[in-house]
Amino acid sequence: MSETEKKGFACLDRQRTERCGWPEVIYGEGKTAPQIAAIFRELLAAERGGAGLPIYATRVDAAKAESLLAEIPALHYDETARIVYDHKPAEGKGLVAVCCAGTSDLPVAEEAALTAELMGACVCRVFDVGVTGIHRLLAKEDVFHKAKAIVAVAGMEGALPSVVGGLTAAPVIAVPTSVGYGASFGGISALLAMLNSCACGVSVVNIDNGFGAGYMAAVINAQSVA
Amino acid sequence: MSETEKKGFACLDRQRTERCGWPEVIYGEGKTAPQIAAIFRELLAAERGGAGLPIYATRVDAAKAESLLAEIPALHYDETARIVYDHKPAEGKGLVAVCCAGTSDLPVAEEAALTAELMGACVCRVFDVGVTGIHRLLAKEDVFHKAKAIVAVAGMEGALPSVVGGLTAAPVIAVPTSVGYGASFGGISALLAMLNSCACGVSVVNIDNGFGAGYMAAVINAQSVA
Amino acid sequence: MSETEKKGFACLDRQRTERCGWPEVIYGEGKTAPQIAAIFRELLAAERGGAGLPIYATRVDAAKAESLLAEIPALHYDETARIVYDHKPAEGKGLVAVCCAGTSDLPVAEEAALTAELMGACVCRVFDVGVTGIHRLLAKEDVFHKAKAIVAVAGMEGALPSVVGGLTAAPVIAVPTSVGYGASFGGISALLAMLNSCACGVSVVNIDNGFGAGYMAAVINAQSVA
Amino acid sequence: MSETEKKGFACLDRQRTERCGWPEVIYGEGKTAPQIAAIFRELLAAERGGAGLPIYATRVDAAKAESLLAEIPALHYDETARIVYDHKPAEGKGLVAVCCAGTSDLPVAEEAALTAELMGACVCRVFDVGVTGIHRLLAKEDVFHKAKAIVAVAGMEGALPSVVGGLTAAPVIAVPTSVGYGASFGGISALLAMLNSCACGVSVVNIDNGFGAGYMAAVINAQSVA
Amino acid sequence: MSETEKKGFACLDRQRTERCGWPEVIYGEGKTAPQIAAIFRELLAAERGGAGLPIYATRVDAAKAESLLAEIPALHYDETARIVYDHKPAEGKGLVAVCCAGTSDLPVAEEAALTAELMGACVCRVFDVGVTGIHRLLAKEDVFHKAKAIVAVAGMEGALPSVVGGLTAAPVIAVPTSVGYGASFGGISALLAMLNSCACGVSVVNIDNGFGAGYMAAVINAQSVA
Amino acid sequence: MSETEKKGFACLDRQRTERCGWPEVIYGEGKTAPQIAAIFRELLAAERGGAGLPIYATRVDAAKAESLLAEIPALHYDETARIVYDHKPAEGKGLVAVCCAGTSDLPVAEEAALTAELMGACVCRVFDVGVTGIHRLLAKEDVFHKAKAIVAVAGMEGALPSVVGGLTAAPVIAVPTSVGYGASFGGISALLAMLNSCACGVSVVNIDNGFGAGYMAAVINAQSVA
Amino acid sequence: MSETEKKGFACLDRQRTERCGWPEVIYGEGKTAPQIAAIFRELLAAERGGAGLPIYATRVDAAKAESLLAEIPALHYDETARIVYDHKPAEGKGLVAVCCAGTSDLPVAEEAALTAELMGACVCRVFDVGVTGIHRLLAKEDVFHKAKAIVAVAGMEGALPSVVGGLTAAPVIAVPTSVGYGASFGGISALLAMLNSCACGVSVVNIDNGFGAGYMAAVINAQSVA
Amino acid sequence: MSETEKKGFACLDRQRTERCGWPEVIYGEGKTAPQIAAIFRELLAAERGGAGLPIYATRVDAAKAESLLAEIPALHYDETARIVYDHKPAEGKGLVAVCCAGTSDLPVAEEAALTAELMGACVCRVFDVGVTGIHRLLAKEDVFHKAKAIVAVAGMEGALPSVVGGLTAAPVIAVPTSVGYGASFGGISALLAMLNSCACGVSVVNIDNGFGAGYMAAVINAQSVA
Repeated sequence: MSETEKKGFACLDRQRTERCGWPEVIYGEGKTAPQIAAIFRELLAAERGGAGLPIYATRVDAAKAESLLAEIPALHYDETARIVYDHKPAEGKGLVAVCCAGTSDLPVAEEAALTAELMGACVCRVFDVGVTGIHRLLAKEDVFHKAKAIVAVAGMEGALPSVVGGLTAAPVIAVPTSVGYGASFGGISALLAMLNSCACGVSVVNIDNGFGAGYMAAVINAQSVA
Repeated sequence: MSETEKKGFACLDRQRTERCGWPEVIYGEGKTAPQIAAIFRELLAAERGGAGLPIYATRVDAAKAESLLAEIPALHYDETARIVYDHKPAEGKGLVAVCCAGTSDLPVAEEAALTAELMGACVCRVFDVGVTGIHRLLAKEDVFHKAKAIVAVAGMEGALPSVVGGLTAAPVIAVPTSVGYGASFGGISALLAMLNSCACGVSVVNIDNGFGAGYMAAVINAQSVA
Repeated sequence: MSETEKKGFACLDRQRTERCGWPEVIYGEGKTAPQIAAIFRELLAAERGGAGLPIYATRVDAAKAESLLAEIPALHYDETARIVYDHKPAEGKGLVAVCCAGTSDLPVAEEAALTAELMGACVCRVFDVGVTGIHRLLAKEDVFHKAKAIVAVAGMEGALPSVVGGLTAAPVIAVPTSVGYGASFGGISALLAMLNSCACGVSVVNIDNGFGAGYMAAVINAQSVA
Repeated sequence: MSETEKKGFACLDRQRTERCGWPEVIYGEGKTAPQIAAIFRELLAAERGGAGLPIYATRVDAAKAESLLAEIPALHYDETARIVYDHKPAEGKGLVAVCCAGTSDLPVAEEAALTAELMGACVCRVFDVGVTGIHRLLAKEDVFHKAKAIVAVAGMEGALPSVVGGLTAAPVIAVPTSVGYGASFGGISALLAMLNSCACGVSVVNIDNGFGAGYMAAVINAQSVA
Repeated sequence: MSETEKKGFACLDRQRTERCGWPEVIYGEGKTAPQIAAIFRELLAAERGGAGLPIYATRVDAAKAESLLAEIPALHYDETARIVYDHKPAEGKGLVAVCCAGTSDLPVAEEAALTAELMGACVCRVFDVGVTGIHRLLAKEDVFHKAKAIVAVAGMEGALPSVVGGLTAAPVIAVPTSVGYGASFGGISALLAMLNSCACGVSVVNIDNGFGAGYMAAVINAQSVA
Repeated sequence: MSETEKKGFACLDRQRTERCGWPEVIYGEGKTAPQIAAIFRELLAAERGGAGLPIYATRVDAAKAESLLAEIPALHYDETARIVYDHKPAEGKGLVAVCCAGTSDLPVAEEAALTAELMGACVCRVFDVGVTGIHRLLAKEDVFHKAKAIVAVAGMEGALPSVVGGLTAAPVIAVPTSVGYGASFGGISALLAMLNSCACGVSVVNIDNGFGAGYMAAVINAQSVA
Repeated sequence: MSETEKKGFACLDRQRTERCGWPEVIYGEGKTAPQIAAIFRELLAAERGGAGLPIYATRVDAAKAESLLAEIPALHYDETARIVYDHKPAEGKGLVAVCCAGTSDLPVAEEAALTAELMGACVCRVFDVGVTGIHRLLAKEDVFHKAKAIVAVAGMEGALPSVVGGLTAAPVIAVPTSVGYGASFGGISALLAMLNSCACGVSVVNIDNGFGAGYMAAVINAQSVA
Repeated sequence: MSETEKKGFACLDRQRTERCGWPEVIYGEGKTAPQIAAIFRELLAAERGGAGLPIYATRVDAAKAESLLAEIPALHYDETARIVYDHKPAEGKGLVAVCCAGTSDLPVAEEAALTAELMGACVCRVFDVGVTGIHRLLAKEDVFHKAKAIVAVAGMEGALPSVVGGLTAAPVIAVPTSVGYGASFGGISALLAMLNSCACGVSVVNIDNGFGAGYMAAVINAQSVA
């Protein structure tokens, strides 16, 4: 019985790498720093004897991260992405493009980008290219043509994935963000717009789920360069 | 006491032209052909002694229109726009651009376009220019620069007004349509996207309200060329 | 100027194959049989001089399909998938798995499956494997391991993608269906469940959008076997 | 006239044990510690002369609990379940299984479990068995076969009750939790999924209502071993 | 391979009786009469060699039922409950009370009542006892005291389960119906009221899900008289 | 020009007493204590030369009330009702009954009760009579028969007005409260239940709008004893 | 046992006149003509030996009304109000004003007006006085001053009750109608506007519930002239 | 590469004045004071060499404004409008009327008014003219006749634009505010009312979007006096 099971707050899924190709990722929200640390230790130990893939936790705020790094000094923290991780893979493969519409979408976009990097992808960031200044977006068209998968992040009217989807053959993972006010309803506006995109090859993840989009893009990218 | 008041189904607002500059427009939905005919007669009689502005009814389906034209043969019917009218102004002034995203948005766009024409505007139609084929839209950029007011009609993700708003100095009236399925929720998706547009100078009317947008655009256009 | 443009009901996107790798797909809903036929002719002519990729129309009901095949006898119709197409690629590559929870989800699942086949994928159908009879689903685990992309279709509680996502390394495209009654709210229940899936590597398309999921899966599959 | 009635903040239902078999349970939310204490005294006094059943208050946070135990030292407090109670029954009867999907669902699950114990049930906890790691859940299948009633607690996609319901003959009480973010909408996603469960023998209580589920399960369990 | 599997429209869950105690129930909605007939034959054959439990289909409208009985004359049809079944158990055990608020709730209430009877319960119907005529309800209080499980069916304000739950020790399964207009929103009003019931021992099933409530009540009743 | 107009934060409606029979009531939410004080002074001065009716402000929290009473010592504050007023009428007329379902509904009920008293009604409070303990409510039936108007306040399932409406000939003003959690959605559940009440003679005000209900009841009561 | 009880489709509330002052009103929706006829006979028989108050059924469409009058020729039918009744009181007392915003609101307004007349009120109809032609409304100000209760009916933006409420001392019963399209959401828009009315003395009934508003107004009117 | 691009938090749209006639406006929400300062410096430098139009930032709270003015002392701050700007145009042209319903709507109305002034319009403020005191509004009718564009701001029932729209020929931009409680749902009630306005020539912007309305009005005004 592991430390986490003895303490009763988690029951780690040890066969996950075998079934799904990647070890469990720690969802930091609603867990204490000591709980996250305990899970880190268990997963690091397991992975050390295995493929040596990166272990990381998402949704870790600055205060928790500080405690965590105090307890396990070998860890690293990216404050924008709110991710704590043990190491990055040596060099990225393929290409995942991560674009976002505005400055406020950066944390979600960066969560996607870092996730994809931790899963072995080469990542190109194309930030602040909202559709109301369409020429800025079109200036980056070649990136969208080279990418194996694209993450498109936007709040408010959520139009970015539709325009990007019309420019490329690559699959687009759309991420609505909770950026906006009034009738944006915490991201519902952007979510609905993305689900109703006229562009082909666009699918959607939950509001603010940068991790989910980065994971999906990295899996597609990895398959495509295998 | 007028015919309509005697029959008790309407109480026409005779001071409307004086207060608002335009005579009452007949909303055909939920009225019978004889009721619409009675109101037409009353408004035509009033206008004949006045400015001679066009009198018209919106939301008139083909069957009702047929009865109506049988009763008042001088009227005309536009089946796409679902509008019955007595005459068009001799020649349009200024420029109202009416653009729409897809083929299914045509009835709403045409309702806006004909309304603006009946209110004296010169109208340029730019149809089937959805944002997933952005180059088709950009090819029409000069129209958007010349227009005094733009009506942008779209269903599904409702992104068209945001892109158009970023290309022009003219005020944009956005019209969400009920075109779509699933999570488009009868136009809510497009409505929310438009209310949350990042573009400046965009305002929104009710779902499928082509008339309202055409009216607003015509008023702005008329003021701007006065 | 093409036939469709002359008639004013469409403005085909001719650069689409170049930009996106696939010719435009005809969305049959809300178009008449003659309109669909005209677009078919135009796209077939264009493709004949190009890569010779399949041309097809989705959301075509039986009555429209009959008229369409009468006009262009070389076309084929799949009634469950509601798709009219000119030809299937000679032999599929890679593997796309399409699974669904219940009998009523079949049309959506079949739309996804046939779309993926038309786009060159080898497709394995795993139907009627809802999560309340979990052993039926687990009996097919090997298919999920071999697939390059998985389409998981479900209405009601929409739990299938979560369970499937936990069994495989392949990316999962989840399709909520409008199957259900009462608090399923036309597919909202399943849509929300899928957006909130705990499984990694799951993204979602619009309610009943089998085509969108099949397209996305086919693109991923094609990239992965290229 | 009792103390609580004199102070005007409550009007206890003295016939409740007679009609419903159990004394009133104190809902702690929105009541002050002195108010809860006054009600405790009144109910304890009544029960002392009756069946001697446990008296308890739910939704009591740590600060209130401290004041309460300072005023009535004989009480006990379970911080995870947020329940203050006077005593537990000597030994449990029958079997209520309480399972939950993730670590964050623990407080709700524990509220259900302790409630059932206070109402005389033997309780088996099966925690952290979400459906994306289906093998962990299946490893506990025998518990679900032995139970007289099952409480299944889950947030996010809320799929646990559907899978559990398919494994057992026992009635399942599903509890959606507010765990999640974005389109989980504070538990609506899980609530809808559970209401739409394909499994037979599943009914649902309010979001985060661990008490309600534990009460229902205990009543069913008590009847079944009577 | 069975007839239904060969035809590809269903994949029956043969281990269901073993796991859950009851054979699969056929959900008639969205299946054709021949499909339902084929499944009936398969389930009847299986059960004949087993416990001989009743086989039945819910949500069967009158037209389908007629075809079905023409094909398998041994079946019976209850038009109010919309259920087709092969036989009823010889004599009921225990007591399930099924009450409803108004005349329009009858089909849902009857679906619950007949389901419970088919699963071996003795059923007492208490119809048209809405809370605005509270004395009619109180006149039946003894039935609620004797029942092992109660199904409470109501549309509109959905208050019946709260009042009934306050009168009895038995578990109450609440069924919201889509009866009402305007702000009843197809049963949402009643559903929310029931989920928020102040009464203890009340849980809820989907809107109009009389079958689900009858099943749950029958399972509880069966356990309680075992 | 008055003090408030000079400062630009309000434009008092001086003809209100004449048109509506009662002077303006100050809505305290979102106004500062000095602003409320200034409006008080203006209204008191106006009323002093008129009918001498009470002047009061609703939604005043304890901190604001303290400042207000420091500035105008003649005022009084009711902390439960959150109302500041200058005087109560000498003696009440007629009868307004104010009942509520639970302890947490008290502030809203008390706001209604005090409002009615300030407007000259005799008020009878019937608190903590929720429908799950129906006998407590029925014990007060005579009050409901004597009242000229009844205010029924409830959160959660909002069933109280339906039951009360079935017991009396008097008009019932229903007030949903935001009391509850989960699927009570801040009072929506109770609001919908009340709008869908089967009882005749029930109308509804906004969530937590005790003032509105008390005002309506007082107006009806005043008319009925005039 | 009465005819309706024997047939099992209703359980009439015989003490209703005694408790509530008026006999039961038949809600025609969802009942067959013979069922309504049976209830009519029973209520007429009861009332004949009592106060001789009018007996009537609401929501009766033209087809049902025809059958009903064929069976009980003494009845009368008002097609606009969709009400069947046995007689009107000799002469009205007091004054109920019923106003509505547009022509399409007429059926709901007429249901309110006729209900109030059947319950003994003198009724003044003020139709087609929407707030965008405010002078038409103000021209009727004296009616609003004389009325003992006002019913204000409106769809779309639902602003009428707010303006009327600001003109009068009488209590206003607001009725939202389902008139409108797009974002009127079947009356939700008007319902919300009315619940949020700034005017004092306004309360609201369900969407399209003309009967409920007329009943409430009649009760208030009757009390006020007693 | 500019300072903002080097720091990576923004990618300014330098061609905006050319395309849209006005330089970019800084949206202050979610940006730090140093970030806003950097963008100010860049836009001021660009505009100094151009048309010399005002540069301003919206949604800047008092604390951020203080830092900002400490860093760039030449800036000005309007606390009610929450706008920081460098200078106002010498003298306004045309006429924009900004009216609002209540005191709490002032910040949104003032944001609209100052925006219009910064864009060269002469602005007339008509505050606290809610529709329940209709005579106050009608007293200002001449302002509405003279204006080239009208901004109408209201929360709660959102009726102001409908009444104003009926009094004038000028286009009306309606702004719903989040003022209200309960069923106002943070401005949804007012938003829906405005989208459903019966008045012609009314369009709507997002909840609390005073800037958007002021911008739209200023553009229309500028065109109309050019």
